[in-house]
Amino acid sequence: MSITAIALTIATILAGVVNGKSEYIAYNTTAGIVPEKINVHLIPHSHDDVGWLKTVDQYYVGANNSIRGACVQNVLDSVISALFEDKNRKFIYVEMAFFQRWWRQQSKAMKVKVKGLVDSGQLEFINGGMCMHDEASPHYIDMIDQTTLGHWFIKDSFGKLPRVGWQIDPFGHSAVQAYLLGAELGFDSLYFARIDYQDRAKRLKEKNLEVVWRGSKSLGSSSQIFTGIFPRHYDPPDGFTFEINDVSPPIQDDVLLFDYNVEERVNDFVAAALAQANVTRTNHIMWLMGTDFRYQYANSWFRQMDKFIHYVNKDGRVNALYSTPSIYTDAKNAANEEWPLKTEDFFPYADHPNAYWTGYFTSRPALKGYVRMMSGYYLAARQLEFLKGKSSSGPNTNALADALAIAQHHDAVSGTERQHVAADYALRISIGYTEAEKLVASSLAFLTASRSSVGQEKAVANFQQCPLLNISYCPPSEAVSFDGKSLVVVIYNPLGWKREEVVRIPVSSEKVIVKDSGGRTVESQLLPLSNATLRIRNRYVKAYLGKAPSETLKYWLAFSASVPPLGFSTYTVSIAKPTGPSSTISMVYTSEDSTSNSIEVGQGNLRLLYSADEGKLTHYVNNRNKVTASTEQSYSYYSGNDGTDKDPQASGAYVFRPNDTFSINSESQVQLTIVRGPLLDEVHQQLSPWISQIRDFRTDWDLQVNQPVAGNYYPVNLGIYVQDDNAELSLLVDRSVGGSSLVDGQIELMLHRRLLHDDVRGVGEVLNETVCVQNECEGLTIQGKFYLRIDHLGEGANWRRSVGQEIYSPLLLAFTEQDGDNWMNSHVSTFSGIDSFYNLPSNIAIITLQTGEDKDYSVLTSVELKKLFPNKKISKVTEMNLSANQERATMEKKRLAWKVEGSAEEETKVVRGGPVDPATLVVELAPMEIRTFFIDFDRIKIIIGYLAI
Amino acid sequence: MSITAIALTIATILAGVVNGKSEYIAYNTTAGIVPEKINVHLIPHSHDDVGWLKTVDQYYVGANNSIRGACVQNVLDSVISALFEDKNRKFIYVEMAFFQRWWRQQSKAMKVKVKGLVDSGQLEFINGGMCMHDEASPHYIDMIDQTTLGHWFIKDSFGKLPRVGWQIDPFGHSAVQAYLLGAELGFDSLYFARIDYQDRAKRLKEKNLEVVWRGSKSLGSSSQIFTGIFPRHYDPPDGFTFEINDVSPPIQDDVLLFDYNVEERVNDFVAAALAQANVTRTNHIMWLMGTDFRYQYANSWFRQMDKFIHYVNKDGRVNALYSTPSIYTDAKNAANEEWPLKTEDFFPYADHPNAYWTGYFTSRPALKGYVRMMSGYYLAARQLEFLKGKSSSGPNTNALADALAIAQHHDAVSGTERQHVAADYALRISIGYTEAEKLVASSLAFLTASRSSVGQEKAVANFQQCPLLNISYCPPSEAVSFDGKSLVVVIYNPLGWKREEVVRIPVSSEKVIVKDSGGRTVESQLLPLSNATLRIRNRYVKAYLGKAPSETLKYWLAFSASVPPLGFSTYTVSIAKPTGPSSTISMVYTSEDSTSNSIEVGQGNLRLLYSADEGKLTHYVNNRNKVTASTEQSYSYYSGNDGTDKDPQASGAYVFRPNDTFSINSESQVQLTIVRGPLLDEVHQQLSPWISQIRDFRTDWDLQVNQPVAGNYYPVNLGIYVQDDNAELSLLVDRSVGGSSLVDGQIELMLHRRLLHDDVRGVGEVLNETVCVQNECEGLTIQGKFYLRIDHLGEGANWRRSVGQEIYSPLLLAFTEQDGDNWMNSHVSTFSGIDSFYNLPSNIAIITLQTGEDKDYSVLTSVELKKLFPNKKISKVTEMNLSANQERATMEKKRLAWKVEGSAEEETKVVRGGPVDPATLVVELAPMEIRTFFIDFDRIKIIIGYLAI
Repeated sequence: MSITAIALTIATILAGVVNGKSEYIAYNTTAGIVPEKINVHLIPHSHDDVGWLKTVDQYYVGANNSIRGACVQNVLDSVISALFEDKNRKFIYVEMAFFQRWWRQQSKAMKVKVKGLVDSGQLEFINGGMCMHDEASPHYIDMIDQTTLGHWFIKDSFGKLPRVGWQIDPFGHSAVQAYLLGAELGFDSLYFARIDYQDRAKRLKEKNLEVVWRGSKSLGSSSQIFTGIFPRHYDPPDGFTFEINDVSPPIQDDVLLFDYNVEERVNDFVAAALAQANVTRTNHIMWLMGTDFRYQYANSWFRQMDKFIHYVNKDGRVNALYSTPSIYTDAKNAANEEWPLKTEDFFPYADHPNAYWTGYFTSRPALKGYVRMMSGYYLAARQLEFLKGKSSSGPNTNALADALAIAQHHDAVSGTERQHVAADYALRISIGYTEAEKLVASSLAFLTASRSSVGQEKAVANFQQCPLLNISYCPPSEAVSFDGKSLVVVIYNPLGWKREEVVRIPVSSEKVIVKDSGGRTVESQLLPLSNATLRIRNRYVKAYLGKAPSETLKYWLAFSASVPPLGFSTYTVSIAKPTGPSSTISMVYTSEDSTSNSIEVGQGNLRLLYSADEGKLTHYVNNRNKVTASTEQSYSYYSGNDGTDKDPQASGAYVFRPNDTFSINSESQVQLTIVRGPLLDEVHQQLSPWISQIRDFRTDWDLQVNQPVAGNYYPVNLGIYVQDDNAELSLLVDRSVGGSSLVDGQIELMLHRRLLHDDVRGVGEVLNETVCVQNECEGLTIQGKFYLRIDHLGEGANWRRSVGQEIYSPLLLAFTEQDGDNWMNSHVSTFSGIDSFYNLPSNIAIITLQTGEDKDYSVLTSVELKKLFPNKKISKVTEMNLSANQERATMEKKRLAWKVEGSAEEETKVVRGGPVDPATLVVELAPMEIRTFFIDFDRIKIIIGYLAI
Repeated sequence: MSITAIALTIATILAGVVNGKSEYIAYNTTAGIVPEKINVHLIPHSHDDVGWLKTVDQYYVGANNSIRGACVQNVLDSVISALFEDKNRKFIYVEMAFFQRWWRQQSKAMKVKVKGLVDSGQLEFINGGMCMHDEASPHYIDMIDQTTLGHWFIKDSFGKLPRVGWQIDPFGHSAVQAYLLGAELGFDSLYFARIDYQDRAKRLKEKNLEVVWRGSKSLGSSSQIFTGIFPRHYDPPDGFTFEINDVSPPIQDDVLLFDYNVEERVNDFVAAALAQANVTRTNHIMWLMGTDFRYQYANSWFRQMDKFIHYVNKDGRVNALYSTPSIYTDAKNAANEEWPLKTEDFFPYADHPNAYWTGYFTSRPALKGYVRMMSGYYLAARQLEFLKGKSSSGPNTNALADALAIAQHHDAVSGTERQHVAADYALRISIGYTEAEKLVASSLAFLTASRSSVGQEKAVANFQQCPLLNISYCPPSEAVSFDGKSLVVVIYNPLGWKREEVVRIPVSSEKVIVKDSGGRTVESQLLPLSNATLRIRNRYVKAYLGKAPSETLKYWLAFSASVPPLGFSTYTVSIAKPTGPSSTISMVYTSEDSTSNSIEVGQGNLRLLYSADEGKLTHYVNNRNKVTASTEQSYSYYSGNDGTDKDPQASGAYVFRPNDTFSINSESQVQLTIVRGPLLDEVHQQLSPWISQIRDFRTDWDLQVNQPVAGNYYPVNLGIYVQDDNAELSLLVDRSVGGSSLVDGQIELMLHRRLLHDDVRGVGEVLNETVCVQNECEGLTIQGKFYLRIDHLGEGANWRRSVGQEIYSPLLLAFTEQDGDNWMNSHVSTFSGIDSFYNLPSNIAIITLQTGEDKDYSVLTSVELKKLFPNKKISKVTEMNLSANQERATMEKKRLAWKVEGSAEEETKVVRGGPVDPATLVVELAPMEIRTFFIDFDRIKIIIGYLAI
């Protein structure tokens, strides 16, 4: 029956079939820009997350594909091969963590060929950091470091400077990106995809997706960068995705095969181009030809793009070309158009009325804390590495630098990765730390070695450190009292000014004495450990080390230490003689013991008043600056939306969507435990079995449309402050968290998150962190620190900036043992890396990038380089861009000029430090300015980055 | 809290990490065979269905990926590229339909390079037909033709001869494959995957998976081939699949990355190799490194295989090497082992107790019929193409050859493809037919042109043909009676012997007269069209041509025609003079009119007796051979299992699994309509509205374990017969169907299938063929023919073989008009392509390959080549192998010798035709023998294949 001369069907299907034998078609892919046409810049790219659902190495080698099929090695192998095949093809590569892995594995011959691709512009490095960092959680120093690491790799291997910022995936954008990671890097433009859906809609309508973004008001146009926001996501228009197995119709241009579709596909292309041109200024539009982990077989894309360029340009209605964001930027710049001005952040990001991506500001607070802590440690370790002199063979900071760089990825410190991937980042940092710890120990051994012993390589101290001090675990300090030895504590200060701070270490004995390097007894206090602290210590040491701590811990020993800038002091802790002086044991009260309704705690000028019956902080008194403020403190939780109401959006790793608009307060009436002593007072509150002044909670917050609350959750990267007519309340954090001020005079911080649903943004796993001992698991407990301060209006910045820097760079403690008292005689016990009579100005090396300048600090400040390097002869000082891959003067010369709409009216005068006088070598720094220099000594070249507030 | 120096974890994870910088690793992939070790032959391959879920061209270009991500262009592009990268890598390619498409699109430079790969053995063509044909449904001529087409492409383009049969996917295997498509092609071995699961289990246990398979008992060892059945499917061992996104763990051998796993993966490899070696004779095992549509990015496989070869051979426990089935075959042969002997088919195939793949023997009977009909037409058209002389510019048979070749694919004529793909095959055949129809018309015009008019290119007849004659639609014959013109019917006989047959054409007039080329009136009969026939005609013409037939049809006109071998006769049909002789109009009775209980129908020696009350055939009487047999005929259906019982296996396109073991009979008591006339008697039965002597039914049959019935459904490719002590009942089919003899003396054929469930063997679509007019669809109706005969025991083969050939090669009808009676005078009205006094022996060109030889025909027969080509001077005759890509003598010289277990005892003497005497040019043919020759005339070279029974 189906003999079926299906004549009618044939006529239709074979419309495109012509007589004649199809042979090899040489596609013309040479197209460049055609000024009078709409130019469709095809940007072949692959967005390769440096860890997310899989670890960075799993993504690289294509392991664990059951979770997600992705193999970056495929991408790079096949892209390079496809570029060799046609010199008109281009590709951009972004994530140096991956490229570096690939590069290392190539043969010399291949490397030569790939260099050719880079030289010819076929392969261009864009962004060029190790990863595409998150913009909410990382410390800005980490962003700079990870970018610098990538830029130097590119510079070393290819002699190239990335020109374009490419933050296409992060979940909102910080003005820091425009200024520091944009203008200061010498980037000509910045591109990304994710802004608030309402913002995007408005910009689409008004053709305002491409702007000039000014990252700092005070630095004005010198902090600006041309910024393009994509009309939709960072993938191709519908129907133009060509990964293997993608469903877009390929161009079928072989007349001897069925389904010839050249005209149809060219029409699709032109229609999509015109639609985009309608929302874009100038006649240049960019098509992102790729998305996550695409180009696993690059030829599947290039084959189609070759054909589109060939046939679309034959058609002639629009002009299609292989391009890169650099070429596109130059075309935009050449158009001589005026662009809208943008200031401030692009935070928070929402992609849907009930989907504000503000949960991730707090997701995985343990990882966020670990990254921040290790970032500070890395800074100190780098200094010690420099002070000792970097060795090619010994331990170094490279592994930690690399691990930290990767951890800045927008699915790493952001907390939006899968659990096993979070563990991988932590493991890498831990490995890096272990190496850096050795370096620090050997550097301190070198620096403490007495002059006579230097070079003799003997009697080198064996320093131990205590990375688990935060859970009250420190074997060397706990061991004090055994067999008559004393504990030597070397305290290193990574900051440029002298510090006097209370140092706390756990001890097992209640009869100890602390002495300074001069042998003088130092006042010290023993604080008993709370049951909650002991419980955490025991459980977590077991969980992480696989065995219970061997010592029975009794006290925190606190003593006040004084440490010179970029230097160290030494203290000893020994068992006190039975009749001699020893540490004071703190007195302990509970609120029930109190006869008054008000309990006062605090040392010196600062006092806190608690109500005895409610157990809440009520007043804050600072006698020094005459501030008295009534306060209220409470802990509460948001119950996460499970997505079962009419909008199925659940709260998850990314999205913060609570069941109700208001948080749920924990029960009132909490007993206080007060610990008093000569150095410190402490207040302990146990709010519930799982909250001990820090709590674990389930979360979310409904950002209803038209509710002002929606825009009020922000990343609190370093700190937050609120002010009224008289005072300002400042709060500094030890890690990035989400926070807000929903009511005047109130600060709200989200401390922890534990969720029972996925929020369908890709991670596909519930954010429910647990800690297990054997098979018994419980929710992860977080210990963190918040620093509170109330100042008169306008006076808080001073404290925020200096203390903020001290939080980031805590004193570094190293421990060793001594027999008897001979340490101080046989070793260098105090040291400063800079001129011993010089302190850095206290605003240098501190930056918050919070808007608003402090009245004292917001002035031009200067640094004397000669005093920073007292024992070295400086032969040359060269100012560099932020990632130090080019001279700043060269960068400035190349900087593209952009016209800003209505800008004639209001460009404020920009204050920046002037050039460095080669004779005096004094560096000026303006507020908000960061300057980077290469300093040549006789033999060594170092970089130093200065930070101003 | 996660400061977590996860020390214990680190120790484990980094076990493989050593110090030192990993650089480029040059993998050693040079390994060849190491005689004393277990050799793991890695066979990189991609199994590329020439149509299945998508059409052949969709698979080639990667269109329609929403159905299935598959793009053969990716496979070939990336494989070739990967082969260039390392000269030790190898790949086999099988399906020439795809390779030809790819080859045609390549540049000359690329072609030169690819030829290099073929010459060096890196790229080897295996099997080498256009597709991997089904072994149940195709006519053996189609198998040979499609293989020859591919082999000639390979020969022409690369000068190579495939050495290995590679039927890895077809659903059971026919002995024809071993003999004709194996030994006769000159193949050294044959490999496949699918045999009955119980058979495989037994062979695994007994190390009998590799055998010597003897395809013909009578031709003995000359029809045998070394045959390897894979221990499981045609994919790699678990954990060794490396397509992009596959989940097997890649070798991670970069010591600087995490999860280094070389030792672990080498252990996996060795374990899998030893397991396979345990079920295999000799120390050579084959790993099929690939499966369906794999190697879309070949590098993802080769990268891993490079590493495995490198590290496994470094390990040394087994030897891994890049190999091909040819290399493997040579290694097996060199081992000088004795192999088990296998005879008979590997049918039916079951992969599960309730999953016998016997449904597909009948699935899509319309497509099966169309392919078979067009195969016969193609044979005739090729003859006419030869008789006219092939022209390079005019119409030709190439497109039909190509379409038919592709349609032999094991998901094409098998009926196991998706509906749109079935339509694509039909469309391709239809396009090929349209071209071949023009060729046939022009050839007949050339041959009928009178000698004087030859070369003058005028008065060339315009012949029409009627491909929809099966649904009673034939515009030229229906038009007889208009404006005084007569219909000229040229009848071509593609067989080598003279034929006298009744020809039937539809006419609209009841007063017609038929004359032969001598002007003599020929007896003719008009048979009224049944309502069922008219209904089908009207509906299907509308469905396929988009409009109703223009003529009101009244009759079938039947007349007896006599046609010379490989030649034609001419008849005219005109409106009879009112008073002159004309066709006899048949008399029509119904069984209700009958006075007797027995109704006798039939002409000449053959009579059929029907019972009037039941309407069933009761007796068969043949007076010529004195056979009388009581018969019973019934129609019934199997209800398909829906897979809801304890075994979820449903009946589907592949699998036949009925609800019950027994078929369901339709109601008895059916009215008969008897049509009588001088030439033909017809009996019409309307069993239900949807059955008119042919019926549409739902199907299946439960093949319970341990039921003999399970092994009893076989492909009925050409016919089937059963016998008892006295007689044999033969039944020939016009297309391949499934059939059986479940009870002694009974033949059961499955005519049609319509199913409501998928059987989960991949097609993912319900086999429910419908025909739609506008939007009104109904189940597809099939019209087919079965030829029944009862002979004395041992005498049926004669009829089966000659009539079988006549069914395959029906008389070809071409129609034109004449004014008045002058056609016969102005044209050649009879013609024979061979010596006019010569008929081919009536066993030549007929073959059934059913076992058992006819006593008359099973003798050496001879053909006189000179008489076949009476007007041509034969200068040379060269005997070739079956696909005519090499001389037979060369093939025989190269043939590998294989020892067969216990073969010394029983090798029967093989009878084959001897060499051709160059003087007499007489070709001898033994029973079951096919011989192929190149015959050189003065200028023309042709191939001719002889078939013997």
